Amino acid sequence: MKTLSVDETARLISRQKKILILTHRNPDGDTLGCAFALMYAARAKGIEAGVFCCDKIPEKYGYMFSDGDLSSDSDEAFIIAVDIADIKLIGAEYSEKYENRVNLCIDHHISNTHFSQNLLLRDCAAASELIFDVIKSMGVEIDKKIADCLYTGISTDTGCFRFSNVTEQTHSAAAQLIKAGANHYEINKVMFETKTIGCFKLEAAALSGVEMLFDGKCAVMTVTKEMMKASGTSESDCDGLASIPRRIEGVLVGVTLRERDDGTFKASLRSYPPADCAAICSALGGGGHARAAGCEIRTEFFDIDKGKLLAAIKKELDKI
Amino acid sequence: MKTLSVDETARLISRQKKILILTHRNPDGDTLGCAFALMYAARAKGIEAGVFCCDKIPEKYGYMFSDGDLSSDSDEAFIIAVDIADIKLIGAEYSEKYENRVNLCIDHHISNTHFSQNLLLRDCAAASELIFDVIKSMGVEIDKKIADCLYTGISTDTGCFRFSNVTEQTHSAAAQLIKAGANHYEINKVMFETKTIGCFKLEAAALSGVEMLFDGKCAVMTVTKEMMKASGTSESDCDGLASIPRRIEGVLVGVTLRERDDGTFKASLRSYPPADCAAICSALGGGGHARAAGCEIRTEFFDIDKGKLLAAIKKELDKI
Repeated sequence: MKTLSVDETARLISRQKKILILTHRNPDGDTLGCAFALMYAARAKGIEAGVFCCDKIPEKYGYMFSDGDLSSDSDEAFIIAVDIADIKLIGAEYSEKYENRVNLCIDHHISNTHFSQNLLLRDCAAASELIFDVIKSMGVEIDKKIADCLYTGISTDTGCFRFSNVTEQTHSAAAQLIKAGANHYEINKVMFETKTIGCFKLEAAALSGVEMLFDGKCAVMTVTKEMMKASGTSESDCDGLASIPRRIEGVLVGVTLRERDDGTFKASLRSYPPADCAAICSALGGGGHARAAGCEIRTEFFDIDKGKLLAAIKKELDKI
Repeated sequence: MKTLSVDETARLISRQKKILILTHRNPDGDTLGCAFALMYAARAKGIEAGVFCCDKIPEKYGYMFSDGDLSSDSDEAFIIAVDIADIKLIGAEYSEKYENRVNLCIDHHISNTHFSQNLLLRDCAAASELIFDVIKSMGVEIDKKIADCLYTGISTDTGCFRFSNVTEQTHSAAAQLIKAGANHYEINKVMFETKTIGCFKLEAAALSGVEMLFDGKCAVMTVTKEMMKASGTSESDCDGLASIPRRIEGVLVGVTLRERDDGTFKASLRSYPPADCAAICSALGGGGHARAAGCEIRTEFFDIDKGKLLAAIKKELDKI
């Protein structure tokens, strides 16, 4: 494994005749923004380029590409993984196919497992920030299409510039992308403003039963299959729910319990410092990071398992 | 009335010995960010400076100032109005006192009524963007305190970089302010992430009864005094409610009806192009802008007045 600079990466890509760009499974705005921006930049240099994603790309990202841009043809192609920390994230069926075959990885996760032959890694808010630098180094002009892709990556991976990962460079890149024509208002409207009526109804139902515990330092929100049925929503509509309980004023540990079909509730925890979610979840056999972690609760033993979780939360809050 | 450039404004301020900076009533992040940033910059130049606001400043903005910074002493002071489009917005009791006495106004509303002796006006996302340029032209270093104030103004007046008013310059200013030490993550957490449990409960109650009309192109959300009582919220907690119905996927006209103590419901309308809220509200004696407008509904004749409003909305939607 060789570590590359931005300029070395740009030169390596520019030398290729055909490239295939891999995104991670459950694709988000950053992995897709990286992939399609790099695809357009490569084509501008006369390189044959396509993108592969193991999952169906959600409709809301449709403005980034045409169906013909999606390719699974990796014959003789130089393989580039973008925004992928581990080969497993390419998708279960494909990680074996591409293992040891990824020529270059461009990523911003410091946890990157160094699975590729060449690696460009920087700890920045979005991988799209890195791709932006690579494309500029390739000598390709940032047109509106590329700007839309990269702006999407930056905006979605920073919660529209709200997360703590945002730096001076993040805003500087956004400024240049807007100058290049990025349709920032429409992109943010689709990514952040708009939700289906079902999602709103589900949130309303879940919030109306939220429990405030331990002097208001903990909020627990439960989402049942019944609520999802009544609101006409599915699992994919629940993405944003886990962040809600922590947003209640005074809460240090926010918990979302979501009922699944497999006889369990998924417990998603979010915290503010100094409360440590990973420490709490490890008591129930789960894990994660200090600010975001998860574990499982058995539906059959809901009250017992929830009690254990609350005890672990109380223990953590008592330390503060 | 004389129109000034940024450099002329900076020179005019730098020549003063004592200044009093006026904010508008119901102060928001932009008027306060402008006022306190300019106060600190003036003091750095050895100028005696204070800020006057007719209303109590909400606690969440407390990090910008100390109580001693608030002043109503305008004797011999050079009076500067920031983010104020009309003298009336200084507050009913004070607009007479300061009428014809404002030496300089720095503003970003193109509707500015030219009430001041000197005016620096630019159509930008936040008045804080303008103040940023003025402070740099004054030769004052942007320290952390000033950066926090100006970042607050820019972030709050753009819905955290989501509104259509955001430009390349907005992000460029944010980049420089973060470099200067602005505590962007904490500021956005307070301004956008956190809400009281009462606000969440009120939203949940209002959303659970939302009506979808005219093929889903119109959403009507009603907020009653009963809901506010049950959630323990007051009028000031309702600020963000009006933006919710338009966020439902497919909605072109979002309506929020909020019951008041005076025997009326306030109808707040928000639209996406081409639906025109002002045209709808004028049919009921109200008014406003194409994207945001309002009118009144009499509680006693709720069904009749609501029917008139819905008829006006249908008429507008039928044109599309």
